[in-house]
Amino acid sequence: MTKVLLCEPNFSEGRDAGIIEQVTDQVRRVTGVRLIDTNSDADHNRSVLSYLGEPVAVLAATKAMAAKAIELIDMRKHIGSHPRMGAVDVVPFVPVRNMETAEAVHIARQFGEFLGGLGVPVYYYEDAATRPNRKTVPQIRTGQYEALAEKLKDPGWSPDAGPAKFNAASGATITGVRMPLIALNVNLATTDLAVADRIARTVRESSGGLPHVRAIALSLEEARMVQVSMNLTNFRETPIPQVMEAIRSEAGSYGVSIAGAELVGPVPLEAVTEVLKRYLQAQDFSMEQIIENALID
Amino acid sequence: MTKVLLCEPNFSEGRDAGIIEQVTDQVRRVTGVRLIDTNSDADHNRSVLSYLGEPVAVLAATKAMAAKAIELIDMRKHIGSHPRMGAVDVVPFVPVRNMETAEAVHIARQFGEFLGGLGVPVYYYEDAATRPNRKTVPQIRTGQYEALAEKLKDPGWSPDAGPAKFNAASGATITGVRMPLIALNVNLATTDLAVADRIARTVRESSGGLPHVRAIALSLEEARMVQVSMNLTNFRETPIPQVMEAIRSEAGSYGVSIAGAELVGPVPLEAVTEVLKRYLQAQDFSMEQIIENALID
Repeated sequence: MTKVLLCEPNFSEGRDAGIIEQVTDQVRRVTGVRLIDTNSDADHNRSVLSYLGEPVAVLAATKAMAAKAIELIDMRKHIGSHPRMGAVDVVPFVPVRNMETAEAVHIARQFGEFLGGLGVPVYYYEDAATRPNRKTVPQIRTGQYEALAEKLKDPGWSPDAGPAKFNAASGATITGVRMPLIALNVNLATTDLAVADRIARTVRESSGGLPHVRAIALSLEEARMVQVSMNLTNFRETPIPQVMEAIRSEAGSYGVSIAGAELVGPVPLEAVTEVLKRYLQAQDFSMEQIIENALID
Repeated sequence: MTKVLLCEPNFSEGRDAGIIEQVTDQVRRVTGVRLIDTNSDADHNRSVLSYLGEPVAVLAATKAMAAKAIELIDMRKHIGSHPRMGAVDVVPFVPVRNMETAEAVHIARQFGEFLGGLGVPVYYYEDAATRPNRKTVPQIRTGQYEALAEKLKDPGWSPDAGPAKFNAASGATITGVRMPLIALNVNLATTDLAVADRIARTVRESSGGLPHVRAIALSLEEARMVQVSMNLTNFRETPIPQVMEAIRSEAGSYGVSIAGAELVGPVPLEAVTEVLKRYLQAQDFSMEQIIENALID
């Protein structure tokens, strides 16, 4: 039973193809690691990688990737629309197969110690968090890079690894362990952004909606539609179909129908299986029945 | 890109655990083959195995399995409720990954030649068929084992491999290549078998319903429900959601709702993905996005 760990690091370069390539290449070079997705956004000035493999190989790839990013990215010159705190900004490890959370936390902390050793203050988050007020990325990233010099003078912000000292070139890094995050966008057959906005408010956790759902409303100018763009941070407790049907019902109350949906980036098989179980009312269906599942060690 | 072939042989023993075990064990012994499902039915007096791996390994396992079944099963003594023609009755090969139909047909025919060499008349069916009137199992199996001695005197029934001579102990074998077959049962919240029967007639191909759907009505006495029990023989042309929604609509016209559904045995990932795409209206979703997919060579 091979253990499989996924890593989805975000680093603060989304424009310079040379730098993006050099950082990504550190992952490609590691035997036993498979790069499954890359995404660079020029407006955000940020890139996200997704790769997986056995934990030791994933740790090695992540160390090499981070060292290269630290070497090439200077936060003093970084401008982008996405919140960020460091050259290597957020590094989530996600246990995928035959791994307990605790094992993944151990890997995340090994990575944290490594990066700390390179002079970068490191904070542990989610399942690796050490303090209740430093659990989520938004909590830790408050004030972004620009606030770091001041924050690091406060004992409440002493890092979990690395020096309690501002690193102007590299900023600080957040690493830890979380569940796979599902990016679900639902398009509505209307151009009325207010409708999408009201639905986003209804479904998202922060305004009293469904647990583990973050949602914003967007206008899709070209498609002449609006979108509820979401992250589901715990698909076991709040499954995709529950979110989908909540949106369908809300939209219906405005006389608006769903034009389509998108799942962006990697999705775990378990979440796909749950969609099947819900819509076919096939509660006894097991992931083990999927033929391809037998091809994985 | 490893090639993966699935084999789902049916052999004519569902009662004697010793024989079932010895036959199944021939598959277990072959390195590189994974046995993913076994099902023995005493009433049918028949067993079905599902195993997969690289084509060469699957062929080796199938030869060994069939040779053992021929050795241990005597069709002169076989009684069971399921139609059958031979000790090794039907041997479908199913291309699962990185394989063309033609390659699987080549494997099926190698198996046919092997079994023919053991003195068993062999007929090729579905994608390996050699004559239009010998395409399906029911076409070839007409009259069952009991009709074989006579049929083999007719040039229209000269086998595709092996001798045109009745083998009393082993009967004859059907082998070939088909798509994965999906076993879908839909339970209805009524005890009225007539409703299930009318729905079965409406959806099945043989009475003018959906292509590639076989359906019968069953009474589930203990559960106090009725069931439409189906095989979908081409889930690409007639996907699971289409069948499900046809049944929901028909049942609704009798004022009956769907109590639940079961997918029995192995299901290909592609069919699961189609369910998600249909119900989430996520037409752009790709199997490649499923994290576990990246773990398969």
